[in-house]
Amino acid sequence: MIAIIGSGNVASHLYEALKDKTDVVIINPHTLEGLPSKVDIFLIAVADSAIRQVAERLPVTMDALVAHTAGSVSMDILDSVSLSYGVFYPLQTFSKNLILNYKEIPVFIEGNNSEAIKKLKNLASLFSDKIFEADSEKRKQLHLASVFACNFTNALMGVADELLRQSDFDFSVVLPLLSQTVKKLETLSPEQAQTGPASRGDTSVLADHLNMLDKFPEYQQIYKIISDIIVSKRLQNIQK
Amino acid sequence: MIAIIGSGNVASHLYEALKDKTDVVIINPHTLEGLPSKVDIFLIAVADSAIRQVAERLPVTMDALVAHTAGSVSMDILDSVSLSYGVFYPLQTFSKNLILNYKEIPVFIEGNNSEAIKKLKNLASLFSDKIFEADSEKRKQLHLASVFACNFTNALMGVADELLRQSDFDFSVVLPLLSQTVKKLETLSPEQAQTGPASRGDTSVLADHLNMLDKFPEYQQIYKIISDIIVSKRLQNIQK
Repeated sequence: MIAIIGSGNVASHLYEALKDKTDVVIINPHTLEGLPSKVDIFLIAVADSAIRQVAERLPVTMDALVAHTAGSVSMDILDSVSLSYGVFYPLQTFSKNLILNYKEIPVFIEGNNSEAIKKLKNLASLFSDKIFEADSEKRKQLHLASVFACNFTNALMGVADELLRQSDFDFSVVLPLLSQTVKKLETLSPEQAQTGPASRGDTSVLADHLNMLDKFPEYQQIYKIISDIIVSKRLQNIQK
Repeated sequence: MIAIIGSGNVASHLYEALKDKTDVVIINPHTLEGLPSKVDIFLIAVADSAIRQVAERLPVTMDALVAHTAGSVSMDILDSVSLSYGVFYPLQTFSKNLILNYKEIPVFIEGNNSEAIKKLKNLASLFSDKIFEADSEKRKQLHLASVFACNFTNALMGVADELLRQSDFDFSVVLPLLSQTVKKLETLSPEQAQTGPASRGDTSVLADHLNMLDKFPEYQQIYKIISDIIVSKRLQNIQK
């Protein structure tokens, strides 16, 4: 029996991913109402700061495994809770009411012993084709990379949205461009896929764009820094 | 008869998009070899800095329309070349050997008279379902927004790639995350779709991540600026 402890997006998506594959319940972390008496694996999917507190309230039996699902929280936060503990980190952005292809979600596993690792890998294999081991240090690095790849990408879309609204265009006009940008990365490295004025070394357009951003000092700063990175990578490639 | 003047990605994709729909040729801008004697529309798809020079060498007849395909070049660069001129700007990232869904590519049209606008719209409608008018000022703004949405997104993927390689992970582990980030934007605004430590106000993870970027001052700067933007948008939303 698997008990997912949580009421947010990660908890409900993990429940969706597992419900037809194994015995699984989803339990409110505040009340723990409906918790079965015999649980083999507790999966704690709550806010980072609440993990320890929730874990310490669980009725963990001798042979039960306790794991959390957070990217940036060390496994050791669970060491006082059970003899067997670990981390079950699905690398995805979870939103309510959006259907996900669970097979595609990479899951990163850590455990304090080989049996714990094996159990968590078996659990992940019920829905995912992409299972990796990652210790707490590597998982933090993964989380950091995914902040750039996902959260910051979304923030840049917010900037594009604002700039487009200034010209009375809807954000949807850049969506095909964005889809293609992502599609290219299935076959090209980010370096190979780079296009645009900075990658062409088009200093006249760069100067023009910086001018246009005079009223948005933060966006101007982002424009400068990211363009500098693109230009310096381009020069490195030319020297190769 | 349409003559696409250019040898790069934009020229060859426009040719692909049009070849089964109308009489069209693609012509090398250096030699102009094979240029038909009667051309109705010249589409100049060359580097920004070469547009004027290429345009001035074209054998433009009285009733021919001349247009360029650049995002950040004013229409007026063509005013000495023909009585009828304009811009035909497809908003997409074009790479060789990648198949595109041309129906989905928004095309932004400008013309120096209503007849020119009508002709360019008709041409765009041969492959695209999304045709808009945009004067040179608006088109520049579109180009700027698309640099954030496309070129800078790709550059952030380069950063993620570098961070992942540090932990011996392949860039492909973040691709499902990236696809989902884009998919969410089909139904949510960038503000609604925002997730991650900055949007949760998780200052402990933010401090941790900044620490981890100590060896990458540019990436640290990007992390700070974009997180600040996410945090301030979040606070604005709370106040709403």
